[in-house]
Amino acid sequence: MGRRIVVVGGGAAGGTAAQFARKTDRNAEITVFEAGKYPQYSKCALPYLISKKVKNVVEFSEEWFKHANINLLLGTMVKEVDVKSRRVLAEHDGETIETGYDSLILATGANSAIPPIPGVVNESGGLTKGVFLLRTLDDAYAISSFIPRVQHAVIVGAGAIGLEMAEALYSHGVKVTVVEMLPSILPGMLDSDTAGVLQKAIPEDILILTGHRVLGVEKEGDVVKKVSVENEEGEQKTLEADMVLIATGIKANSEVAKKIGCKIGEYGGVSIDGRCRTSLEDVYAVGDCTEYLDFVTQKPFLVGLGSIAVRQGIVAGVNAAGGRMFLPEGFVQTRTTKLFGVEVAAVGPTLKQIQNINPVTGRFTGGTLPDYFPGGEEVTVKVAVNPADGVVVAAQAVGVDAAQRINVFACAIMNKMSVEALSQMETAYAPPVAPTLDPLTIACDVARMRYVRKR
Amino acid sequence: MGRRIVVVGGGAAGGTAAQFARKTDRNAEITVFEAGKYPQYSKCALPYLISKKVKNVVEFSEEWFKHANINLLLGTMVKEVDVKSRRVLAEHDGETIETGYDSLILATGANSAIPPIPGVVNESGGLTKGVFLLRTLDDAYAISSFIPRVQHAVIVGAGAIGLEMAEALYSHGVKVTVVEMLPSILPGMLDSDTAGVLQKAIPEDILILTGHRVLGVEKEGDVVKKVSVENEEGEQKTLEADMVLIATGIKANSEVAKKIGCKIGEYGGVSIDGRCRTSLEDVYAVGDCTEYLDFVTQKPFLVGLGSIAVRQGIVAGVNAAGGRMFLPEGFVQTRTTKLFGVEVAAVGPTLKQIQNINPVTGRFTGGTLPDYFPGGEEVTVKVAVNPADGVVVAAQAVGVDAAQRINVFACAIMNKMSVEALSQMETAYAPPVAPTLDPLTIACDVARMRYVRKR
Repeated sequence: MGRRIVVVGGGAAGGTAAQFARKTDRNAEITVFEAGKYPQYSKCALPYLISKKVKNVVEFSEEWFKHANINLLLGTMVKEVDVKSRRVLAEHDGETIETGYDSLILATGANSAIPPIPGVVNESGGLTKGVFLLRTLDDAYAISSFIPRVQHAVIVGAGAIGLEMAEALYSHGVKVTVVEMLPSILPGMLDSDTAGVLQKAIPEDILILTGHRVLGVEKEGDVVKKVSVENEEGEQKTLEADMVLIATGIKANSEVAKKIGCKIGEYGGVSIDGRCRTSLEDVYAVGDCTEYLDFVTQKPFLVGLGSIAVRQGIVAGVNAAGGRMFLPEGFVQTRTTKLFGVEVAAVGPTLKQIQNINPVTGRFTGGTLPDYFPGGEEVTVKVAVNPADGVVVAAQAVGVDAAQRINVFACAIMNKMSVEALSQMETAYAPPVAPTLDPLTIACDVARMRYVRKR
Repeated sequence: MGRRIVVVGGGAAGGTAAQFARKTDRNAEITVFEAGKYPQYSKCALPYLISKKVKNVVEFSEEWFKHANINLLLGTMVKEVDVKSRRVLAEHDGETIETGYDSLILATGANSAIPPIPGVVNESGGLTKGVFLLRTLDDAYAISSFIPRVQHAVIVGAGAIGLEMAEALYSHGVKVTVVEMLPSILPGMLDSDTAGVLQKAIPEDILILTGHRVLGVEKEGDVVKKVSVENEEGEQKTLEADMVLIATGIKANSEVAKKIGCKIGEYGGVSIDGRCRTSLEDVYAVGDCTEYLDFVTQKPFLVGLGSIAVRQGIVAGVNAAGGRMFLPEGFVQTRTTKLFGVEVAAVGPTLKQIQNINPVTGRFTGGTLPDYFPGGEEVTVKVAVNPADGVVVAAQAVGVDAAQRINVFACAIMNKMSVEALSQMETAYAPPVAPTLDPLTIACDVARMRYVRKR
């Protein structure tokens, strides 16, 4: 009999772990318990399903898993794990399923965080009618079928999901207001200066209220009708709203891990080591339910990126199946999105997150082609440098090929490269492709000069 | 009186050196002697001037130099340099100009190499009518005015210039044949497999004869009429040709340097150190007339890239003006172009150039967006790894954003990063921007697995 591997959760992290367990051990018995009714799909694609830009978000079908000889059980909730006897009890349609394991992989993901705003939750503890979250495919279907009756939507939170949904609802002709407590949009990715560059691309008839907090959601009958907000000066405003989307972040779903005694980190995620092992023997955890080290700060953070979930899934799958593979010594957290045609990307902490080291920065906005060549567009690149040693610690970009430029910085950060060395790197140059000095080079050079002067 | 800096040659390298000398020393007396009649222009843009894609290739005008208080003398040929007395003698319109210097920067560039093909050169030592080179703006003007009478063109050499000119002439309705001695196109940038991917993008009515050498150019009267070629099996063919473009590479123009006693390298370029200093005191050299170390092989190569010329210009300008700045410990030679809408890029040696180490490679062709997202295109990425230590030494890419992907590899190579670390790097992911695992990641993973198996 082969090694028995049980995965709890069939999202990107769990699904990938199952796949790589299979690649590592052809004879393993692999079971995935997934509470939802859909096979592995892309959560990040849900706004585009709602805008109808994509028709399908499933990445690996039930057939795919079957073909890989992975036992994927949908609509199956794990009820109990006995670590001593290494058994998992799950329930499907009222029936109990019991499975033993040699390796257990927890991939229980995260839930949307629901802020304590009066009116969001109704008397029975559910969401008020017209209030939505966007975390699951069912959430997306619920929003899609509600849209025809929506004229005014208020989105709480101007992070990636909030703004992607602003674009999706706008494409349906909905009048959208986005309310953000912090002073600028995409605060988890951009500083206020680079956020300002992005904000210019957002149509004027989408109202963005930064520096505003939501006071409450008002109903007419049992349905949402208005949202009241307040700015930092205490001025209040009431917004029409027949739909409210809560997009204020996620909280790790680490219930199962907690129950069986896995060490939980300070942000509520499961603590894991470089092989995705929890504090319990032969129990692994991956994806949004985990905490791991940030590469730059070397402090734990709550994983909330699909790119990391997949990379953890690979490592956990290999290790759970008897292989040996390690995570990097921290994640650089490369992240990106595209909003209203403008690509934005970032890597490493935002300035706010590293204000303690008082980083030196360089920013440059320039053409993606030489001035004399037609068709060039603009990209803004910003880099942050540790003033102690001149090493690149973070970068942001807004505009054409922002993401690939940020991948260059991801590589530089992983190698603890100095901004001086990076500013001398030969970026690819040809008139129809890029200027002799890429905007990323010039941003680095600005930072380099400031760094040298500061020393 | 300020420091006297004399620059010989006003191309990208010389012009940049003058600019950075000025930035470093506000009071320096800076003189640039340029033999040609145009101020600093982009040589790489000449094919696009011929195709009429660009209207102007001048990057820094005479006014610009005047404004920067740099004395740019066009149409001025340096006749003599006396290193002992530190004086330069130049000639302009029959008049002699004599200038003293504290720092001398040689930026004399390169000339097109002319292969010993019968019929290319006429009795008087000039090029046969209808035979062209493309190195200078005057070359481009000569070609442009000749095009109206051209029906069939033969291009000798399928490097970047040869293929860019194939596209330019094709855009004018010329029937083009490209003859390349080596077995595949763009041999200085791509291996035969990645070259094959590019070749599919070239219109079928452009005839590409790889593995063919040119036997001779035949004339009718004093004008080119036919070109005879031969393949590796010795089969001969005669091609119609009322125009022949020689695009077989360049040779360093290091005459002045040789005359004054600078050390010349094995490829005929001026040898320089990490501060762009020649073997003579206070004499610097930059750009296509120089040789410098390749980062990977740590062997000298003849500089032939605008991106390097500019970076050398910065370093030489700063040092010549009394500052202190160093080149990297070698150039990774990032290079790119766009041909028939397809971006191609490479960094580091080609496989042929490092066959002695028998590199491990990984190649992957994949979508630039997740499968479910519309609008994705294909990109092929290939990476080469040193089998001794798993370090990335070279990469090639063909397709969307090839250049920025190659910039990531340039960064990895400069940091001697292992293919394992690079394959674990979090590339930016979002459905409208890039897949969870970028094609560059998967190419690295293919190489990583082969490397591990080989150990």
